[in-house]
Amino acid sequence: MLVLGVDPGLTRCGLGVVDGTPGRATLIEAGVIRTPSTMETSQRLLAIEQGLEQWLDRYSVEVVAIERVFAQHNLMTVIGTAQVAGIAMLVAARRGLKAVQHTPSEVKAAITGSGRADKNQVGHMVSRILHLESAPKPADAADAVALAICHCWRGTALNSWAQVAQASKVRP
Amino acid sequence: MLVLGVDPGLTRCGLGVVDGTPGRATLIEAGVIRTPSTMETSQRLLAIEQGLEQWLDRYSVEVVAIERVFAQHNLMTVIGTAQVAGIAMLVAARRGLKAVQHTPSEVKAAITGSGRADKNQVGHMVSRILHLESAPKPADAADAVALAICHCWRGTALNSWAQVAQASKVRP
Repeated sequence: MLVLGVDPGLTRCGLGVVDGTPGRATLIEAGVIRTPSTMETSQRLLAIEQGLEQWLDRYSVEVVAIERVFAQHNLMTVIGTAQVAGIAMLVAARRGLKAVQHTPSEVKAAITGSGRADKNQVGHMVSRILHLESAPKPADAADAVALAICHCWRGTALNSWAQVAQASKVRP
Repeated sequence: MLVLGVDPGLTRCGLGVVDGTPGRATLIEAGVIRTPSTMETSQRLLAIEQGLEQWLDRYSVEVVAIERVFAQHNLMTVIGTAQVAGIAMLVAARRGLKAVQHTPSEVKAAITGSGRADKNQVGHMVSRILHLESAPKPADAADAVALAICHCWRGTALNSWAQVAQASKVRP
């Protein structure tokens, strides 16, 4: 399953494409879309939309996995972060792709086994899972890759479960 | 100046088109885009984008005036509200239109003369300014109309000031 992970942010929006099945994952590409803080917000959002479209033109992903933003996040950046997450969801929906949100703890738990792992532990495990010498840089790109891995590992199980439930006509 | 006001919200996104110059305003259309809470967020954002596009196809507005969302707003709804505001900015930017944000106090001050006016006072003044028997319904539509009036009255002055400053090569 090819998944685009998105770590939303106005200044740096992390992106990572991963090909994965539960327990296995290959990195296809990782990077960031940057927009300068001197640019008007509407223009930054437009640049991010265009960047996302380019990534989705390059890779036929099935799912866009986006970090879920909470109101309790950093007050200085939460509005911009939520707006970028919304645009990632919109771009996915427009292409008929599934847009799935995962919380930071879900990502940490999927990658390290603990929802309270720190950034270094997550980065270390991401590089081990992907057989890389170090985690993708910058951190936003690594976070996006972790989101995509998390989705491949969790998402598939959830989907199978939902499918099994549907097949046996039991409400999931 | 034709302005589209947007009171962002996932459940009800208020919209109002106003033709105005400082001290004068005519209501062209007011309404809301509704999306059900049972719908996936990505699909709700897509429906709102499509609704905004339809309004902008119908009216050749110069500016989209959007309520500025703060992290301190209602914690239960702030993320969705920020996402809808972001999509309104994006849609404006894609068409080369100016996307301008106004705070609730700026709107109240422009309409009633006081940044602390309550909803009833704003609604009352909106209906007086537009020569209507009552304010547009629902409240989200009235708020969007108030935003558009605010922009016509404030925006024009600000633009003139910026233009004067630019003409005289003084940094505004």
